Amino acid sequence: MSWTGEPDFADVRVSDLAQATVAIVGLGLMGGSLAGALRGSCRAVVGVTRREAPITFALDRGWIDRGTTDLAQGISEADIVVLATPVRVILQQIPEIAPLLPQGCLLMDMGSTKDEVVAVMERLPAHIQVLGGHPMCGKETSGIEVADPALYRERTFILSPLPRTSARALALGRSLALAVGANPLVIEAARQDHLVAAVSHLPYLLACALVRTVDTKTSADPLAWEIFAGGFRDTSRVAGSDVTMMLDILMTNQEQVVAATEECLEHLNTLKTLVSEGDEETLRAKLSALRDRRREMFP
Amino acid sequence: MSWTGEPDFADVRVSDLAQATVAIVGLGLMGGSLAGALRGSCRAVVGVTRREAPITFALDRGWIDRGTTDLAQGISEADIVVLATPVRVILQQIPEIAPLLPQGCLLMDMGSTKDEVVAVMERLPAHIQVLGGHPMCGKETSGIEVADPALYRERTFILSPLPRTSARALALGRSLALAVGANPLVIEAARQDHLVAAVSHLPYLLACALVRTVDTKTSADPLAWEIFAGGFRDTSRVAGSDVTMMLDILMTNQEQVVAATEECLEHLNTLKTLVSEGDEETLRAKLSALRDRRREMFP
Repeated sequence: MSWTGEPDFADVRVSDLAQATVAIVGLGLMGGSLAGALRGSCRAVVGVTRREAPITFALDRGWIDRGTTDLAQGISEADIVVLATPVRVILQQIPEIAPLLPQGCLLMDMGSTKDEVVAVMERLPAHIQVLGGHPMCGKETSGIEVADPALYRERTFILSPLPRTSARALALGRSLALAVGANPLVIEAARQDHLVAAVSHLPYLLACALVRTVDTKTSADPLAWEIFAGGFRDTSRVAGSDVTMMLDILMTNQEQVVAATEECLEHLNTLKTLVSEGDEETLRAKLSALRDRRREMFP
Repeated sequence: MSWTGEPDFADVRVSDLAQATVAIVGLGLMGGSLAGALRGSCRAVVGVTRREAPITFALDRGWIDRGTTDLAQGISEADIVVLATPVRVILQQIPEIAPLLPQGCLLMDMGSTKDEVVAVMERLPAHIQVLGGHPMCGKETSGIEVADPALYRERTFILSPLPRTSARALALGRSLALAVGANPLVIEAARQDHLVAAVSHLPYLLACALVRTVDTKTSADPLAWEIFAGGFRDTSRVAGSDVTMMLDILMTNQEQVVAATEECLEHLNTLKTLVSEGDEETLRAKLSALRDRRREMFP
């Protein structure tokens, strides 16, 4: 797909993060934190949002060099554009934003599911470099008010290159992940969606089902509120996540999420049956193996 | 049930914790932590265990005044005896220990389920005071090596009095909970078992089912280990719990645990169906209500 007077392909025009102007589209928890974490590691950070308030907030904290509510203006000089909005907004923004991007610009995103995102990226003109991204961190509250430049530190930052992604574009994405203190990890999009369905999206549904059960079983008892602690607090934590973000994730990873949940329903049902039948020998063997596995996973 | 020459009923012989000799039977995570937390708040702390090693460990740290592997000797002068062993060991120890207890001694336990414990306590001679206890704290590791005198601080310490428990005995139990920094909460045994089935035992089974699912879904992929983080870490934490302790808990609260798990299976299945059908409107309403509920539970 060639545009008149432009080359079919363009590699990133800047390969050194320190030389790059980075435009972050969406200044919520993720975008705001990224801005604050990137500041000083690149030439300039530009915040692009629909509303003025997050820009003022980010400017006050010195997280961005400038901000704008005008998308075209915000990205016109960008060497890297990072989409930091919910997944289905990202899916809409990619084709909208494409005609506005300078040649050799790297377009990244930070959505939690990658397969649909890279499918849309794949269709962009060849003079734009593209790279899927998914930093594995977050909070149960949203908005720039709770953003934190330390959010990405020590966390895994998944990078999902496309066949068309150049080595220099991937290296630039890696520099960005490292600059915010994260550990970059390259995983192909479909494979990442399969893994995070079990590791991240299923825990959300489990936490929601648990909150519902505890509510049903205990809400008639005023003392219940005194014993919400320990195991329940941790196991239910992610049920407080932003619903719009989670709906976008579930709906763009439906098949994998459903498969992981079905698998989990089966295991939970097996454990319940063993408790019900008092089959202690089998139960002890299974619970011991899972305890060991958990300890291997988090030594 | 009267023993010759002894009164039918005896209230606690010491009502001030500062005057009490406290014998702790079992010096693992819970018992060792209790010893360390109590020291200084009572006349003496005596550790009673099967093996010498935990006694040496506790003496070295100044957590106990003395220790013994001889049960009869360890509790002969006790004003309070606290059973800090797994629930089904407690159930065996209560009748074994009863003939050895001085008149007016308060017998407490720290097991996570209370209905079977108080049923056995109910049958003891009337010259012994009894009180069920369940401090809501713990760790995913066991043994006195991981004990911590701060373990009980700010945690709920459930006290389940029996009809035969005197007001002074309950007050003494309350003093003990307060002395270790916990918040005492009086709940009748059956009611506590119903509540903790949902709030504490179900989260354990959920965590186990999750670990199993993640293992099945991802163990073929070496990269999976790089993304075990965040939501999965928290939601699966309690799967690392001591299996003997958990089996005792599950087997002494079978009916309530099975009922809570069945309820949860239903809710999880409903969520899965909504994801599968893409019924976003219903899903958004449910997830939003649960997010709000979670935030109310843990403000």
